[in-house]
Amino acid sequence: MRRLSRVAIVGVGLIGGSFALALRRAGGAARIVGADRDLQSLERAVALGVIDTAAESASEAAESADLVFVAVPVRAMGPVLHDISLGLAPHAVVTDAGSTKTEVARTAREELRERFPRFVPGHPIAGRESSGVEAAVPDLYRGARVVLTPTAGTQDDALALVKTCWEACGARVATMEPEAHDRIFAAVSHLPHVLAFALVSEVASRADGGDLLGFAAGGFRDFTRIAASSPEMWRDIALANREALLAELDRYGARVAVFRELIEKADGPGLQRLMTEARNTRRAWPGGKRAGSDE
Amino acid sequence: MRRLSRVAIVGVGLIGGSFALALRRAGGAARIVGADRDLQSLERAVALGVIDTAAESASEAAESADLVFVAVPVRAMGPVLHDISLGLAPHAVVTDAGSTKTEVARTAREELRERFPRFVPGHPIAGRESSGVEAAVPDLYRGARVVLTPTAGTQDDALALVKTCWEACGARVATMEPEAHDRIFAAVSHLPHVLAFALVSEVASRADGGDLLGFAAGGFRDFTRIAASSPEMWRDIALANREALLAELDRYGARVAVFRELIEKADGPGLQRLMTEARNTRRAWPGGKRAGSDE
Repeated sequence: MRRLSRVAIVGVGLIGGSFALALRRAGGAARIVGADRDLQSLERAVALGVIDTAAESASEAAESADLVFVAVPVRAMGPVLHDISLGLAPHAVVTDAGSTKTEVARTAREELRERFPRFVPGHPIAGRESSGVEAAVPDLYRGARVVLTPTAGTQDDALALVKTCWEACGARVATMEPEAHDRIFAAVSHLPHVLAFALVSEVASRADGGDLLGFAAGGFRDFTRIAASSPEMWRDIALANREALLAELDRYGARVAVFRELIEKADGPGLQRLMTEARNTRRAWPGGKRAGSDE
Repeated sequence: MRRLSRVAIVGVGLIGGSFALALRRAGGAARIVGADRDLQSLERAVALGVIDTAAESASEAAESADLVFVAVPVRAMGPVLHDISLGLAPHAVVTDAGSTKTEVARTAREELRERFPRFVPGHPIAGRESSGVEAAVPDLYRGARVVLTPTAGTQDDALALVKTCWEACGARVATMEPEAHDRIFAAVSHLPHVLAFALVSEVASRADGGDLLGFAAGGFRDFTRIAASSPEMWRDIALANREALLAELDRYGARVAVFRELIEKADGPGLQRLMTEARNTRRAWPGGKRAGSDE
């Protein structure tokens, strides 16, 4: 890929830091500037060689950057985009790493205004158990999927640049509309998170919750692993992708009602038919055995 | 423990085979006889040294045994108990490894009749990804929990013998009523299994199911791992523990409805409160990190 003179990373944690490390290793950036509200993280990012320079603000980092990568929580996206919009070079491209895309695209349109055609909404499907810049690694995106969700107004060269950068990081890039992204991730990510939080919430609310957990085993452990995730992050995702998530909750509720009725009627063949179909689908899914990539 | 002259294992798979290996290693059995509907499994059990002799039927295996361990699917429990009841010695103790206990106790009362006080319903909370006698290992129950659910009529010495055998296998034994067992496992095991089957069933039913799975990541993978389990086994468990499971499905449905309402109203603080409580409970649960033991 063409070497960019200056790349700005706003939010230097696991996601932003790993992008910086991967892009640098691919020779994609001459100089990487970082900004973060947490000044200790920012200092560590410089000390670890993740970024070259620490900027005092998002807008300072973005000034004269060719590419700005925004890796902050969804709720911080508006203020950050507002800040950087002030000093962006006309050719600069902006992208993000938020887990929902329709609301991010809407926010970006409002905040970036005439620069919005240079914004490429993105979502890398990657993560690790640990977070923060100390956990950043150049291989985080190797083989991972990244979804880019350009809107009607997104300029082709902006999309192409972001795609090239992700591919240089080793990622496999898919492109779709923001609404399609949000429907897909409501179904396969946001819904299971809410369901896992709800199961542990139900157990936690009981007088005999401790007894119950004392007998819980491997099935419960894996089913509820994602209920140990950040409540702030998942609150924000659930609210940012509210409509698609509500639709998925209702579809799922209808399917659980079918299972419930089969159990109530003691309909063994019907129950076995649905369970077998699910078992076959789960076993045929190539992602079922792979370790690693998280959302 | 006192060495038993003859132990019968009916159903020589992972569970029965591992019990045989563990009990033999502990010096608890002079002679182990096995029976299985699958004659190839039975031959392999002899070849692997898991059992000493293969019997032609459950009743032949149980004849003159001091202890009969029944490790067959819940639906096969009735016919097996009926068979063995014919030739049991008066002092013989019978126990099982079924995942539900109220229905097993009821079936045993009907089939064993005057021998029912010698029956000790049991449930070892252990498993492996692989099944069958080839997967049997003497360490399967080391540190695992085993729940014994004696009824009012169960004789103390029968309970004590089964407890001693499990402890010799390295297990930690808990005792409770069959109904209490079934309520607990409906909540922490049977419910999550049905919920995971339902989620994959919902995805499998969609025209865009393949696309959805193409973007599913680690959260979905762990949440749905148990949907790759045996449909026959989980159909039987769901029906055998129908009442407790329906009650848990309704409790869970009510909790999901609370989450749904918070999302619909965009109540961020309310959502964060419940998610934080769930996150804290999940993180504080010692079983959350342990690998291995399954139900």
